[in-house]
Amino acid sequence: MHIDILTLFPEMIESVFQTSILKKAQEKEKFNYNLINFRDYTENKHNKVDDYPYGGGAGMVLAPQPIFDAVEDVKSKRKTKPRVILMCPQGERYSQKKAEELAEEDHLIFICGHYEGYDERIREHLVTDEISIGDYVLTGGELGAMVVVDSVVRLLPEVLGNEESAPQDSFSTGMLEHPHYTRPREFRGLKVPDVLLSGDHAKIEAWRRRESLKRTYERRKELIKEELLSKEDRKILDDILEELHSSTFE
Amino acid sequence: MHIDILTLFPEMIESVFQTSILKKAQEKEKFNYNLINFRDYTENKHNKVDDYPYGGGAGMVLAPQPIFDAVEDVKSKRKTKPRVILMCPQGERYSQKKAEELAEEDHLIFICGHYEGYDERIREHLVTDEISIGDYVLTGGELGAMVVVDSVVRLLPEVLGNEESAPQDSFSTGMLEHPHYTRPREFRGLKVPDVLLSGDHAKIEAWRRRESLKRTYERRKELIKEELLSKEDRKILDDILEELHSSTFE
Repeated sequence: MHIDILTLFPEMIESVFQTSILKKAQEKEKFNYNLINFRDYTENKHNKVDDYPYGGGAGMVLAPQPIFDAVEDVKSKRKTKPRVILMCPQGERYSQKKAEELAEEDHLIFICGHYEGYDERIREHLVTDEISIGDYVLTGGELGAMVVVDSVVRLLPEVLGNEESAPQDSFSTGMLEHPHYTRPREFRGLKVPDVLLSGDHAKIEAWRRRESLKRTYERRKELIKEELLSKEDRKILDDILEELHSSTFE
Repeated sequence: MHIDILTLFPEMIESVFQTSILKKAQEKEKFNYNLINFRDYTENKHNKVDDYPYGGGAGMVLAPQPIFDAVEDVKSKRKTKPRVILMCPQGERYSQKKAEELAEEDHLIFICGHYEGYDERIREHLVTDEISIGDYVLTGGELGAMVVVDSVVRLLPEVLGNEESAPQDSFSTGMLEHPHYTRPREFRGLKVPDVLLSGDHAKIEAWRRRESLKRTYERRKELIKEELLSKEDRKILDDILEELHSSTFE
């Protein structure tokens, strides 16, 4: 997979892409990238990328010319049909499902604004996807683009080794993970639950499923998909509900 | 505000914190930070921070000792009562409201795992907040911590200059932003809407409100809070609904 990132702050991105999984993915030749400063594409004397908004108001707006030209230049260098992704608060809310969809592509181009709005013509005539990583305000699109790249690249075949791959990753299964414990058995008086030391695998599995259901119910009810629950799950969940209910009124 | 970040990959974070608003906030002495590699706190010979999970299964688990000791060391250096924030998929979903809450604090400590799970005793006895930036799987907590820091620090008094502050930021108003346009008036045959060139401020305001309502309705219905709509908004929204409805059946 090839990824191009258009940004005014390439130095923000470089060191993240040179670390951990993203670095390993490059070493395995599963992923490579270019950082493009779209200021280099301006055609005006002062290399300005933004301008005042028509109709007045605070804030500046990123002009269409440098971004159109940068995207077209980047496209012309490959025969791929890239997705052109605008990072913005108005975009589709990013999800694991979207990550899986993007992981099927050969070429992604990200456009990252900073402070400013985007001229609407960029949105309407240049981009294929608008993405927001969540309902909070960030200074620029760079962190969002890095989040998307990390979540996509780790899905590419052979990128994750065994030790890094978590087969029970939350959001792939639709359920929050059960608690984990490691050594020591007792840390400052805090003990590991007996069941995990019992060696009884069926019991351990049952405990984990119960804790996973309980945590998901308590924290993120909306993630539980009734149709994916087994009969046994349904029974466990009823027990949990009863327990929570009775403890409230005790 | 002081921020400590516990991570095995401090080099991922440094260059982001030396750019843009986060850099300016440090120059204005509104924000300073330390990056702490919690591997430095291990008490075992091989400087191991993780171990196998009790009860078996794939993946490793971050042990309690190095993280407890690192957090306590960091706490002991200040008289503040810090929030201790664990970045994890099981956490509370991050929002602008949470950013505003954290911006009131003097001291934040972030714990960033990488690949692994956390020993449950960290979660139960050390942290005050568990945060997830969204429903997607990332390799580590570092990008999430950077996202939270960026969104919090930009809310601190005097950090944003006029040109960077967007008074109509999405999620502060509960409404997606209207479209923006800047020069040129015509770019590759694509024109700026006439109303924005009219100089009629009342008309421009009405157009923007309408476009903002329309975009929010089309993309993120659930953000529209009926109780915050004026009579006029309500009427505009009814018009939009009628328009969308009739165009579907034409």
